[in-house]
Amino acid sequence: MTLSFEDFPPGPFGSFGPRRVSREEIISFAAEYDPQPMHLDDEAAKHGMLGGLSGSGWHLCALMMRMLCDGFLLRTASLGSPGVNELRWLSPLRPDDELMLDVEVIQSRVSNSRPDTGIVTFGCRLRNAGGQILLEAVTPIIFKRRDSDAA
Amino acid sequence: MTLSFEDFPPGPFGSFGPRRVSREEIISFAAEYDPQPMHLDDEAAKHGMLGGLSGSGWHLCALMMRMLCDGFLLRTASLGSPGVNELRWLSPLRPDDELMLDVEVIQSRVSNSRPDTGIVTFGCRLRNAGGQILLEAVTPIIFKRRDSDAA
Repeated sequence: MTLSFEDFPPGPFGSFGPRRVSREEIISFAAEYDPQPMHLDDEAAKHGMLGGLSGSGWHLCALMMRMLCDGFLLRTASLGSPGVNELRWLSPLRPDDELMLDVEVIQSRVSNSRPDTGIVTFGCRLRNAGGQILLEAVTPIIFKRRDSDAA
Repeated sequence: MTLSFEDFPPGPFGSFGPRRVSREEIISFAAEYDPQPMHLDDEAAKHGMLGGLSGSGWHLCALMMRMLCDGFLLRTASLGSPGVNELRWLSPLRPDDELMLDVEVIQSRVSNSRPDTGIVTFGCRLRNAGGQILLEAVTPIIFKRRDSDAA
């Protein structure tokens, strides 16, 4: 079944994962997109503010997106997203972390400009096995409304 | 020379690029982190809202980060970032786009809690060769203050 706007009423939606992140993945993402020493090199990272190798914050965002896709987004009538309202990196991503993603629907409303669609604002939270929150994001996603299939 | 907090007064900072993005890169990022049909498959993308293959919004963010690193961030006393205040995906990333990144300093202030550091809030804008804005982001980055070297 394809999920539509109507399937996302405000409230807790679900938890997804775990997704284990290896040292190799952390270094490989950083080498391509965020080659700062604390994301690439154990020795340099030891002397940095985070006291050891940590993943790029953008790597965390990309992992969150993959977990959203596998969790439910690929089974929806999603029309994309205009952006992210707020994004906070709260604790560093470490090698071998096992990530869980908690998703809630903060707001859900029919679009004024395109009434065959609705905008669902999600609150997303990535945590590690120790319960530390690594990332919080508030992001709207646009979905088709179920009634719009006939249109 | 390593750039410190004092090197980022409010105002225009610089433009960086171009960075060309291939179809292969777009598909490879999407396969790993955002496997929605419009980012993976020309045929599926043709029937989608964006009318043709487009890159993941998170790929754009990762590319922005790399351009920030190469542009100036790797030559700074950066201590990382607490997050992103606002992120807007305005136009789709297309195969063979040549990206330019415009950076301005929106605000620059000494940290209250850690007076040896300062917080610089950047406005970042990614545009293609046709002048379309693809992404806008407002993001704070923490830097050491120059005077703090002696501490």
